[in-house]
Amino acid sequence: MQRNESDQLRRRSIDTIRALAMDAVQQANAGHPGTAMALAPLAYTIFTRELSFNPEAPAWPDRDRFVLSAGHACILQYALLHLTGYDLSLDDLRQFRQWGSRTPGHPERGHTPGVEVTTGPLGQGVGNAVGMAIAERFLAERYNRPGHRVVDHRTFAICSDGDLMEGVSQEAASIAGHFGLSKLTVCYDENHITIDGSTAISFDGEDHLARFAAYGWHVQRVEDSEDTAALEAALDAARAEGERPSFIAVRSHIAYPAPNATDTAKAHGAPLGEQEVRLTKEAMGMDPDRAFDVADEVYEHMRLAGERGAGAQAEWEERARRWREELPDLAADWERAWSGRLADGWREALPSFQAGDGLATRAAGAKAMAAFSEHAPTMIGGAADLVESTKTVFEGAGQFSRVHAGRNVPFGIREHAMGAIVNGAAAHGGIVKPYGSTFLIFSDYMRPSIRLSALMGLPVVWVFTHDSVGLGEDGPTHQPIEQCSSLRAIPGLWLIRPGDANETAAAWEAALARADGPVALALSRQSVPTLDREGEGLGAAGELHRGGYVLWDSAGSMSGGGESNGSDGAERSEAELILIATGSELAPTLQAGRRLAAEGRSVRVVSMPCVELFEAQDAAYRDAVIPPDAPARLAVEAGASMSWWRWVGDRGDVVGIDRFGASAPGKRVLAELGLDADSIADRAAALLERIYADAEAAADA
Amino acid sequence: MQRNESDQLRRRSIDTIRALAMDAVQQANAGHPGTAMALAPLAYTIFTRELSFNPEAPAWPDRDRFVLSAGHACILQYALLHLTGYDLSLDDLRQFRQWGSRTPGHPERGHTPGVEVTTGPLGQGVGNAVGMAIAERFLAERYNRPGHRVVDHRTFAICSDGDLMEGVSQEAASIAGHFGLSKLTVCYDENHITIDGSTAISFDGEDHLARFAAYGWHVQRVEDSEDTAALEAALDAARAEGERPSFIAVRSHIAYPAPNATDTAKAHGAPLGEQEVRLTKEAMGMDPDRAFDVADEVYEHMRLAGERGAGAQAEWEERARRWREELPDLAADWERAWSGRLADGWREALPSFQAGDGLATRAAGAKAMAAFSEHAPTMIGGAADLVESTKTVFEGAGQFSRVHAGRNVPFGIREHAMGAIVNGAAAHGGIVKPYGSTFLIFSDYMRPSIRLSALMGLPVVWVFTHDSVGLGEDGPTHQPIEQCSSLRAIPGLWLIRPGDANETAAAWEAALARADGPVALALSRQSVPTLDREGEGLGAAGELHRGGYVLWDSAGSMSGGGESNGSDGAERSEAELILIATGSELAPTLQAGRRLAAEGRSVRVVSMPCVELFEAQDAAYRDAVIPPDAPARLAVEAGASMSWWRWVGDRGDVVGIDRFGASAPGKRVLAELGLDADSIADRAAALLERIYADAEAAADA
Repeated sequence: MQRNESDQLRRRSIDTIRALAMDAVQQANAGHPGTAMALAPLAYTIFTRELSFNPEAPAWPDRDRFVLSAGHACILQYALLHLTGYDLSLDDLRQFRQWGSRTPGHPERGHTPGVEVTTGPLGQGVGNAVGMAIAERFLAERYNRPGHRVVDHRTFAICSDGDLMEGVSQEAASIAGHFGLSKLTVCYDENHITIDGSTAISFDGEDHLARFAAYGWHVQRVEDSEDTAALEAALDAARAEGERPSFIAVRSHIAYPAPNATDTAKAHGAPLGEQEVRLTKEAMGMDPDRAFDVADEVYEHMRLAGERGAGAQAEWEERARRWREELPDLAADWERAWSGRLADGWREALPSFQAGDGLATRAAGAKAMAAFSEHAPTMIGGAADLVESTKTVFEGAGQFSRVHAGRNVPFGIREHAMGAIVNGAAAHGGIVKPYGSTFLIFSDYMRPSIRLSALMGLPVVWVFTHDSVGLGEDGPTHQPIEQCSSLRAIPGLWLIRPGDANETAAAWEAALARADGPVALALSRQSVPTLDREGEGLGAAGELHRGGYVLWDSAGSMSGGGESNGSDGAERSEAELILIATGSELAPTLQAGRRLAAEGRSVRVVSMPCVELFEAQDAAYRDAVIPPDAPARLAVEAGASMSWWRWVGDRGDVVGIDRFGASAPGKRVLAELGLDADSIADRAAALLERIYADAEAAADA
Repeated sequence: MQRNESDQLRRRSIDTIRALAMDAVQQANAGHPGTAMALAPLAYTIFTRELSFNPEAPAWPDRDRFVLSAGHACILQYALLHLTGYDLSLDDLRQFRQWGSRTPGHPERGHTPGVEVTTGPLGQGVGNAVGMAIAERFLAERYNRPGHRVVDHRTFAICSDGDLMEGVSQEAASIAGHFGLSKLTVCYDENHITIDGSTAISFDGEDHLARFAAYGWHVQRVEDSEDTAALEAALDAARAEGERPSFIAVRSHIAYPAPNATDTAKAHGAPLGEQEVRLTKEAMGMDPDRAFDVADEVYEHMRLAGERGAGAQAEWEERARRWREELPDLAADWERAWSGRLADGWREALPSFQAGDGLATRAAGAKAMAAFSEHAPTMIGGAADLVESTKTVFEGAGQFSRVHAGRNVPFGIREHAMGAIVNGAAAHGGIVKPYGSTFLIFSDYMRPSIRLSALMGLPVVWVFTHDSVGLGEDGPTHQPIEQCSSLRAIPGLWLIRPGDANETAAAWEAALARADGPVALALSRQSVPTLDREGEGLGAAGELHRGGYVLWDSAGSMSGGGESNGSDGAERSEAELILIATGSELAPTLQAGRRLAAEGRSVRVVSMPCVELFEAQDAAYRDAVIPPDAPARLAVEAGASMSWWRWVGDRGDVVGIDRFGASAPGKRVLAELGLDADSIADRAAALLERIYADAEAAADA
């Protein structure tokens, strides 16, 4: 009898989720009802039985993490968040997919309490979940002690056919198997339907269980998604598995139990239609005339899960209290990590570099990392199998592996999964400034994850080295051209391309200080001179925090940088020529400026390592650094010219590279493409000549 | 005795390949000797025993295709091309990785005879090879007839750990298994070494054979890469397999037989050093004092393979001759396909659209495809499971599957593999204008392949729909912002974003006509008005071939477009305000221009569907369309402003979107972000006001 009541309540709750999904999609006249309906029993089972969460404290550190990688089914998650008591009302559900609502068309971190990551671009959520499981493993090893268990939670993800087809999920699954992330459970909605019809047209030859087993996962299959007992058993077995991540394929029927829409591709991405919604509600024994209708007993029942989670949190708080008492230093470290901060003194720890002949900015970056490493003890990251080249390793901090959660994560040659994993680690919390690193050219391989880091405002760092044709012999497939411009085009991402070793330290400082979004560093493979700023009266590298600053002015005015700059902005320059450069082009541009000055020109050289930061300065500062009435402005960067036209104006010019590179020693390539000091000086002289000729012609007319 | 001599010759040939690889890398002081050395026996076996090729006719249509997906080992391929008699000299090998050489640091299509595709970015070559096998299957079904076999060749690829870790290869392997591409053989260099050390750190949990078997492949393992008999047996078995693609894992030892470098990560990406080269040559029984040394008997032996291929080609020519005689129409169709042309009349077949209320440009694109479909009978392509949304299907042309090589290829939700496959199909030849399609936002998922299509100059088409926030409810994860700018930044790629149905037809015309590179189309999800060009005296849509043209001028001068434009360029406009727009922003911008004209302003509206084509026009035309002395220029595009500053000048403005989108109905999002006609008109009026105020202030001063 008890059992029957409970069965009924479960069924009623699951059907309520389905009805809410149908109603919200119908109201919005847009959305994906079918998957939400099909997965209602699975999500119900996870939320009510597996997941430890507290709707009153969505950010409680030791909560279980839930990722809906199949983000198009977000209404499923919204319905559960509402029913279990999160701060998400029925009115919020009614506003599904409307301007300003808390229920956007795909889950968005920061918009909706209980949504851990922004998903929708397929495959990303699987990678995020792997990142969360890595974060959990790392934090558990760092903070748990014999008799003290302050980190012990699981990560659950639900994914779709599309997630599994995407390469990023395959890369992530490979890593998860390799690391044996046994506290990760990925449920796969095997519905045999994609937008274009049956998966038979494109995905039928594949044995998913065998594939995941080959990656080193524990695999199971539930034959009927309506069979909650089978779901429970599978989730139990996943929990019991101690060595491998778990993959559970759940055979479902899209839009079930809609009498006409079940198992149709149409039910994937379009409302069912009023009539079918009615019929479905009737089939479920619900009143077809009522929309957004939730029985009190369903609320009561569903909220038990949250109460259970609140209890778990209370127990955890007690455990954590004892732990804090016994291990106050560790607890202080923990607090700092969860606040996202580095240990005091990190800025002071950053190196400054002697002027001199040359240090690749990637090498300067390595020294910066070594210097702040101990101040960022939960900073984890690594490279996509290029750590020797990108030089992004925390020496002595160990390697993340199946048996030890070191800080250096060997991502393998899997840039895209690296991106999604770093995002997931950042979203998890406790991991301060996770980072991923590869050659700048391969930022293309992980671009969707970089974009999501910006969309979520995650404080992660992307370290991209070998940042121009100056890398040399590997040739055009490895030489970035358009990457700096195209990264700058991503809203909210800062791209910093430092010009020498000291700017590199300042770039790391800016990256570590940023709390509200990602920073990408573009670093050189080849040596660049470390500028003698004091000796030669150049602007200070620390001015990088303003994005751009005056490095040198032949008139001696260092406005916008160096000693003479005031907090109230910089003086206007009288220079007839403004040269603007970034990265490895800074030194040759300075050299070019000096040559022209020696030839009698008045010249200013502006270092512009971060366009986004410069844009964020007030107009007075910007205009002082780059006087808008100076017609002869020349920007210099060994990459696509696109992002520079804004700064050189109507009559200015850009020394860029708007073609692909070539395989040859780096210096040769740079010289052939006009990026050496002499070529830059010649272009600048020609620009001046043209502008004076035009002015003369105008005066004559 | 015979056998022993042959054994010796084989060994000598293989060692010569190794020596050439060491010498070239040493000479360049850069490169990847280890893999080339380890794979010498495998590549030797493939080239001398498996591959049907003719060095005298590298482009012979029915040759076997060879793809070195592990492009960093290119010196291996160069050595084989040299030894088997391709037009690649020892001097070319000596110029390895030097400016202007034919032996760049990674294989580049077009630079070196015998190199089918540009590889190096890992995983791409596997996808290219799958594309080639798809092309072969398609052409075989189209052109072979009972008693006639003009298409019957295999595709071989060699890949590395890195290739297999990359998601793109996993997506491609999944498709290949699904389609049962049995004429594809992928050999995997299992050397347990990556740049960062042993694969144990990142790739050890995985059972590669089981994974490929799960994808539906025939799998084998050769335990010792030096065992050429085992290699031969495995390649034979792959050839005998009739249902599945073949995967052969070959356990190798990087840099073998170098006495100290074998099995070291260092041997992956750096020269071995003179001393180790000497020792290795000694170990191989070669003279350590001689570099780039090839025995005559090795040349003789290796060139037999090419002679065998030449014989195969001669037989093929004879078969093809009989086939041509018997089936002249089919043969004419074949000739056209291999010349990359469409059937005559394709331009005339393109639709023109009645002015009217609205047609999404994706829908206009569908009508264009239907119209030219029969003129491009070997154009194959498809969408990444969004064909219903992108509307890119050849109706009635069947679907590519295991049993039938239809023209519509269901790529599944695998954008990246789609990109690599389309590139491979184009590189194969015979496939005219292969295309891939998805939402514009997901171009990010396939960006490395798009870049390679541009680098190789492949005549492919990328059809990207849902090209702005106007797609609406799916929200910021699905709304492109920076994608148009970042695609424009790729050298050699044309991005065309047509403004109405007739511009869409013209965009397809430009895409089909381009022979030397890829074209990306950005099409709207939402309806846009089909402009009444004749009735309202607007510039003709056909002017799209110039990239940008005058759509409307309040002074009535339609210079640069419409009836009055002359071939010698356009007249200057006297307009005080120049509005420049693309895509779905064209109509509201025109509307804004008309409002301002009605308010007494003189206004010109420029349609700029393709910036790259406009840049390619002469200065006289460009200046006539966008007078450089007109200060009030406003560009309008529902995307990142980055690519527009160049065209609006110092004092102009851009109505763009430099933030992420939002989930809401498309019209609402566009209006909220200032992209509706009224907002555009307001911004333009404000711009004019500011400019006049500045001018007044200047006059006063």
